[in-house]
Amino acid sequence: MAEPTVPPTFDVIAIGNAIIDVIANCNDALIEELGLSRGGMMLIDADQAKSLYEAMGPAREISGGSAANTLAGLAALGAKCAFIGQVADDQLGDVFTHDIRAGGIAFDVAARPGIPTARCLIFVTPDGQRTMNTFLGASQHLPAEALDESAIADAAVLYLEGYLWDPEEPRAAMRKAIEAARGAGRKIAFTPSECFVIDRHRADFLDLIETGKIDVLFCNEHEMAALVGHDDFEKGVAQLAPQIPVLVVTRGAEGAVAISGDQRAEVGAEPIERVVDTTGAGDLFAAGFLFGHVRGKSLEECLQYGAICACEIISHYGARPEADLKALISERVG
Amino acid sequence: MAEPTVPPTFDVIAIGNAIIDVIANCNDALIEELGLSRGGMMLIDADQAKSLYEAMGPAREISGGSAANTLAGLAALGAKCAFIGQVADDQLGDVFTHDIRAGGIAFDVAARPGIPTARCLIFVTPDGQRTMNTFLGASQHLPAEALDESAIADAAVLYLEGYLWDPEEPRAAMRKAIEAARGAGRKIAFTPSECFVIDRHRADFLDLIETGKIDVLFCNEHEMAALVGHDDFEKGVAQLAPQIPVLVVTRGAEGAVAISGDQRAEVGAEPIERVVDTTGAGDLFAAGFLFGHVRGKSLEECLQYGAICACEIISHYGARPEADLKALISERVG
Repeated sequence: MAEPTVPPTFDVIAIGNAIIDVIANCNDALIEELGLSRGGMMLIDADQAKSLYEAMGPAREISGGSAANTLAGLAALGAKCAFIGQVADDQLGDVFTHDIRAGGIAFDVAARPGIPTARCLIFVTPDGQRTMNTFLGASQHLPAEALDESAIADAAVLYLEGYLWDPEEPRAAMRKAIEAARGAGRKIAFTPSECFVIDRHRADFLDLIETGKIDVLFCNEHEMAALVGHDDFEKGVAQLAPQIPVLVVTRGAEGAVAISGDQRAEVGAEPIERVVDTTGAGDLFAAGFLFGHVRGKSLEECLQYGAICACEIISHYGARPEADLKALISERVG
Repeated sequence: MAEPTVPPTFDVIAIGNAIIDVIANCNDALIEELGLSRGGMMLIDADQAKSLYEAMGPAREISGGSAANTLAGLAALGAKCAFIGQVADDQLGDVFTHDIRAGGIAFDVAARPGIPTARCLIFVTPDGQRTMNTFLGASQHLPAEALDESAIADAAVLYLEGYLWDPEEPRAAMRKAIEAARGAGRKIAFTPSECFVIDRHRADFLDLIETGKIDVLFCNEHEMAALVGHDDFEKGVAQLAPQIPVLVVTRGAEGAVAISGDQRAEVGAEPIERVVDTTGAGDLFAAGFLFGHVRGKSLEECLQYGAICACEIISHYGARPEADLKALISERVG
């Protein structure tokens, strides 16, 4: 790994799906009736997108995409960020582009004609749980040529989402990005995104971990279990932690754990009056944690930042922050 | 006025703008900087829409349109409704169409190619006040031929929004609809929508009132002042009420008044913890009131229904109901 020679322009550059979330309330019976995997993320084709949309109640459209949500949180906290993802030259692509740029995030990948911008149809049950159905559309056609390698070399952290490991073109782009970041001596943060994604790409992800390509790994306890092949939490942590400089494992309402070398910190979940929509909880946890990380905060502070951002995002619909995250953190942590 | 011969299929049919609201928070300084009319609605062209969107923060997209919002509330309460409005054959048109149909509202006007679906750029200041900037797009090209006169004859109430009186084609369509409704012995409810709209069309609106075309008139106190030409509330009520079977005047946080013949009822605003976004307050007040009206409730109950629906809509972003309005009304009124 090369040593960085100049201070980076960006705190975090991320590669991720460029998605508009379409979010509607539904009752539990509809999830069963439609045969959806409650709490999960399913990839759907254009026909499925059409029929699921027809089954959906009135909705709201809010920019989404896992890594893009994380950047929105980071930028709201004051980090300098850039995003790489693919939208189409259509109205939803315009919306995604507007929202990410309006959040102060650099985004310069040219929109492509043809296949429409990605949409995620999100059914939110009365308990706030979200069930996601993603039509990847243009997002899966991010070409390796869309990478701005100089921007990647110019960011302290490259952040990658596992969701984008599924389609072939972005996977190749992410492998190229990892080399660019490593070549410039930058850190790489990664989330495997979801258990089903891990099932499809476990060997790849374990290889990234074992070959020292990942500096910060975010996963929830189920994803950690899928990675290590069993659900003994402490044993899983003990297996993974020695291979990763910073391991962060979230445990839903039970908070989160971070391990770095011989340091270990834990945090409980922030108290919340009512969980409205859990979409983006993990993404915003990562945002808060990474913000602390790039600002050189302690493991415990990083976890606190993560918990505060996650709590904000589940208090309303959508995975982009509504409240002033900076103010929330200075109120709670100082 | 002909007597209706058969019970209507629809409780309410409405003609209105078919708009997607683009809603973003902003600080008070931005409203001034952009030279916007705080709390008002301004019509903008494509170039203004582009530059205002660029000045806007990250946003959320939610179906809107004044009369369409009122129908969404009515349908949520259990009324049978139909909508007439013009969308384009584009992604935002698909979103509008989905949302209105998913709310159980009949909507069959064919999407038109070319000019894009209407958007309203809404800036919400920290006090919850909304400042609206509407690009009418396809919406202003609703042709009179799009009217389903048999559906209009088949609805107990025809509801019209003044906003749509501005563009020529929909104005002609609304005049035709008034004749169709009257010919079938149906009632007509009307809102002048906004003071600036009244300034542009006062003579037309007063003519509709004086010639007995309006059975239920919804306005706020400022609109009433604009209609009668002075701001003496009681004097205004005394002038208008004798010309209209049911006059409903809302007064923001001070509640609302309804007058019908020698009956007069008043209601206070519902208590609310925090006003998030006032977009749709008047629309949902009309929804609650009209629901009571078509169900034969007392003036006072109609006002209560209106106040409950208005309170729900200002507690969150967007002008389409999120909570179960039926349940809210049975909790509060029984």
